[in-house]
Amino acid sequence: MPPDPRFHPAPVPRSLAEIAAATGAALPEGADGSGRITGAAPLQAALPGEISYLDNRRFLDALRATRASAVLLRAEHAGHAPPGTLALIVADPHLAFARASSLLHPLPAPRPGIHPTAVVAPDARIGEGCEIGPYAVIGAGAEIGARSIVEAHAVIGPGCVFGEECRIMAHATVSHTLAGRGVRLHPGARVGQEGFGFAAAPDGSFVSVPQLGRVILGDFVEIGANACVDRGSGRDTVLGAGTRLDNLVQVGHNVETGRGCVIVAQAGLAGSARLGDFVTLAGQAGVAGHVTVGSGARVGAQSGVMADVPPKTDVVGSPAWPARLTLKAFARLKAIAEAPTAPAGQAGE
Amino acid sequence: MPPDPRFHPAPVPRSLAEIAAATGAALPEGADGSGRITGAAPLQAALPGEISYLDNRRFLDALRATRASAVLLRAEHAGHAPPGTLALIVADPHLAFARASSLLHPLPAPRPGIHPTAVVAPDARIGEGCEIGPYAVIGAGAEIGARSIVEAHAVIGPGCVFGEECRIMAHATVSHTLAGRGVRLHPGARVGQEGFGFAAAPDGSFVSVPQLGRVILGDFVEIGANACVDRGSGRDTVLGAGTRLDNLVQVGHNVETGRGCVIVAQAGLAGSARLGDFVTLAGQAGVAGHVTVGSGARVGAQSGVMADVPPKTDVVGSPAWPARLTLKAFARLKAIAEAPTAPAGQAGE
Amino acid sequence: MPPDPRFHPAPVPRSLAEIAAATGAALPEGADGSGRITGAAPLQAALPGEISYLDNRRFLDALRATRASAVLLRAEHAGHAPPGTLALIVADPHLAFARASSLLHPLPAPRPGIHPTAVVAPDARIGEGCEIGPYAVIGAGAEIGARSIVEAHAVIGPGCVFGEECRIMAHATVSHTLAGRGVRLHPGARVGQEGFGFAAAPDGSFVSVPQLGRVILGDFVEIGANACVDRGSGRDTVLGAGTRLDNLVQVGHNVETGRGCVIVAQAGLAGSARLGDFVTLAGQAGVAGHVTVGSGARVGAQSGVMADVPPKTDVVGSPAWPARLTLKAFARLKAIAEAPTAPAGQAGE
Repeated sequence: MPPDPRFHPAPVPRSLAEIAAATGAALPEGADGSGRITGAAPLQAALPGEISYLDNRRFLDALRATRASAVLLRAEHAGHAPPGTLALIVADPHLAFARASSLLHPLPAPRPGIHPTAVVAPDARIGEGCEIGPYAVIGAGAEIGARSIVEAHAVIGPGCVFGEECRIMAHATVSHTLAGRGVRLHPGARVGQEGFGFAAAPDGSFVSVPQLGRVILGDFVEIGANACVDRGSGRDTVLGAGTRLDNLVQVGHNVETGRGCVIVAQAGLAGSARLGDFVTLAGQAGVAGHVTVGSGARVGAQSGVMADVPPKTDVVGSPAWPARLTLKAFARLKAIAEAPTAPAGQAGE
Repeated sequence: MPPDPRFHPAPVPRSLAEIAAATGAALPEGADGSGRITGAAPLQAALPGEISYLDNRRFLDALRATRASAVLLRAEHAGHAPPGTLALIVADPHLAFARASSLLHPLPAPRPGIHPTAVVAPDARIGEGCEIGPYAVIGAGAEIGARSIVEAHAVIGPGCVFGEECRIMAHATVSHTLAGRGVRLHPGARVGQEGFGFAAAPDGSFVSVPQLGRVILGDFVEIGANACVDRGSGRDTVLGAGTRLDNLVQVGHNVETGRGCVIVAQAGLAGSARLGDFVTLAGQAGVAGHVTVGSGARVGAQSGVMADVPPKTDVVGSPAWPARLTLKAFARLKAIAEAPTAPAGQAGE
Repeated sequence: MPPDPRFHPAPVPRSLAEIAAATGAALPEGADGSGRITGAAPLQAALPGEISYLDNRRFLDALRATRASAVLLRAEHAGHAPPGTLALIVADPHLAFARASSLLHPLPAPRPGIHPTAVVAPDARIGEGCEIGPYAVIGAGAEIGARSIVEAHAVIGPGCVFGEECRIMAHATVSHTLAGRGVRLHPGARVGQEGFGFAAAPDGSFVSVPQLGRVILGDFVEIGANACVDRGSGRDTVLGAGTRLDNLVQVGHNVETGRGCVIVAQAGLAGSARLGDFVTLAGQAGVAGHVTVGSGARVGAQSGVMADVPPKTDVVGSPAWPARLTLKAFARLKAIAEAPTAPAGQAGE
């Protein structure tokens, strides 16, 4: 089923040679590099002319039955491609498919221009080829890099800077922020607002601590729909290059992440938490304030990290322990629950 | 206490006969069906002329003291109504009260017209009797069914379709979406944005996978304030008819739910999760990617569903186990914690 | 490092005497009360002329090395201030620093005026000195107290009332709400929308219960970015004076909190939950419907409160137990997981 043309432009056909070049696949001997690929789809849905991929042997049956003209796969699975389907051997089929699909379905280019209803401060600098949508508001002294898109109703505060080819989507709000190139804020993302900092007075009232820092977003950072990134209280909140936040993620003030972290939906980082490079937080996980999670560590869904996690460590549970320990703990707890009697020496229920 | 007239229009008085017809209650012999009911309220707050309900015997004392002119209740409680209060016997008093209250307090009708500040694409089709609020943006080729309301600042992307009597509330954003009739999006709901799909390249960068699907919303679907529903990556994200999402819920790409699912606040469904019909997820629960929860199953608050759940099964805990097992596990764990010594053979603390 | 002048106005210099008066510090004998303080910063970052604070003996080394001209600290640490740094003795250094910093960095005053693009109902009452931003929408009969700021795109529904010196930030939406003075709604906050109330009919459809209450916000209430507060179903949803909600918090209909509650990011209160005064909910915690948490109680991160909590009690875990019990339970569970064999009499794994 090709993408619904009401929402997605038709794919840009590419030659097999172009696909091979983009994905690092070697064209099999005798294959015609000028053959046209007209779309990308899962194995079951792909039509003749389209490209697909196999990443998991669970889907070998779907491979054998596919109508795709070409399939990206690892060498060990190439023999299962049906006749008429070209096997394109790659090291990482999912990555190769992402590249092929991106080639066939490039992001829509900006339609340069500023909508007449946009309110752009006279001294804001809007780069060449930008598209500024209806009712966007861009504050004094802000800079938007070339070929960026600011969608309807987005609000960019005074002094904010975005690099080239950014995309600030509908209803996002930004203040106190310096962002690199290729940064993407999804609808309703909130970036740069005040952090949650205050002191309690003896009469029970709270005194807010002025939040005097900024948000620094590295190149290609993405922030999901309705996710929130508070600015620093004194130093900055920093998201390293390539870090991606899913929807409804919370990032407190002074958080710092390294490069390429992945924070899945509804996870949260409390104030001053630190992540190394390539840390993954699964959905609804949380990291406590001032805690450090080392590079390459992975935090399981709904886990609660209360203490530092060494690099390259998988932790799970709330409180989060090494994954193996938590799995064993829950297996034994289950056995305790299933046993006819409570453990010896215990009061039972 | 009648509703604050600054915010709520006065109730539309109804006759007892109308109330009885709407709720399926039989008017007691000799009751005057033309008597006026002028409002709906809880037992303690109801004034003469108003209707109330009793759903739980915990509130029998409140029933005995109520000033309501009529009370919806089950037969077994009818004898406790005070003199002067008409007992209207129904099978499900809460449902009957919802119907009576809806009759007395109908949703405000749209005030037909397009606010002069709304930006509506010339080829968008706005049905008869729609109300389009200030600063709403409706994209090319979009269709809004008759008698719908699009509130202030809502953004509806190109090609989106809504059936009749929908309500897209203030600041909601929608793209890549086909919606049935009676669909309601609460303020700040995000529907149809890109899913969280990408592949990691060897250099640590991520390559986005184009998200080529749509969101399909069945009739009468409701999506809570600031909740997020991502569009599919290739196939569609589908919410079955009558499904209701509370505030701040996350629905990843390719999720499919059946009819009448209830997803309570801050719960999340990871990509490609599937729910049968009438599944309930309590608050802050999560369902992992590609997992299926069977029809009629119920998932407890803060639970984490990591594996398929059979139909009509209650699960609780993170990881989620059958409710009874988790309750027993935590009861025994509590006993272990309260015991003077750790279980025999253990290292203790 | 002084705050980035692109985002933060320069501090307002204050005399030491002013700082001492605001923080309750006694100026040491012989100190020159007319000395200028030109900024506030952490110990390591403070420059000569600036003020800092020491709250924790962990940072005594930073104190010894600071270049700050004055430091707020407790008497027992005064001897560690380096020569040239004035030790200002206070009972609560963090609170004193919040006050000093607020004096040096006052909130920007409103720039009185209504942006020409704002849509303000003719009978709305806008107090003296208010700033109403671009594309703000203020409904019929609404009242905004003097010296308040309504930022870009905020939508305030008909009849809503705000006291003096409120700040409704960009993209916040409000309906059915009465708010005191000094109330602050952060970007994307949703206040007053319909609660999640409905009854299931035998055919599987849901019948909404009209939500006829309001939201009442006490003086100085703060609501974080993208947080949601539903209006009451019949009675009101009430947040007591000084209560602060962090980002992405959920408050269901009919919730009532006392004074000065602190609800950290992504926590949630289900319908009709009640908090006493000065209750703290840490991040991602949840309180079930109709449950009461007593004054001064504290609920740990990710905890799930399923039953009433007495005043001044710390609870942790999901389900939430007294903190000590949960800590012991998890310590013993860890020991069980680490032991070579499962507890005696158990089936093992």
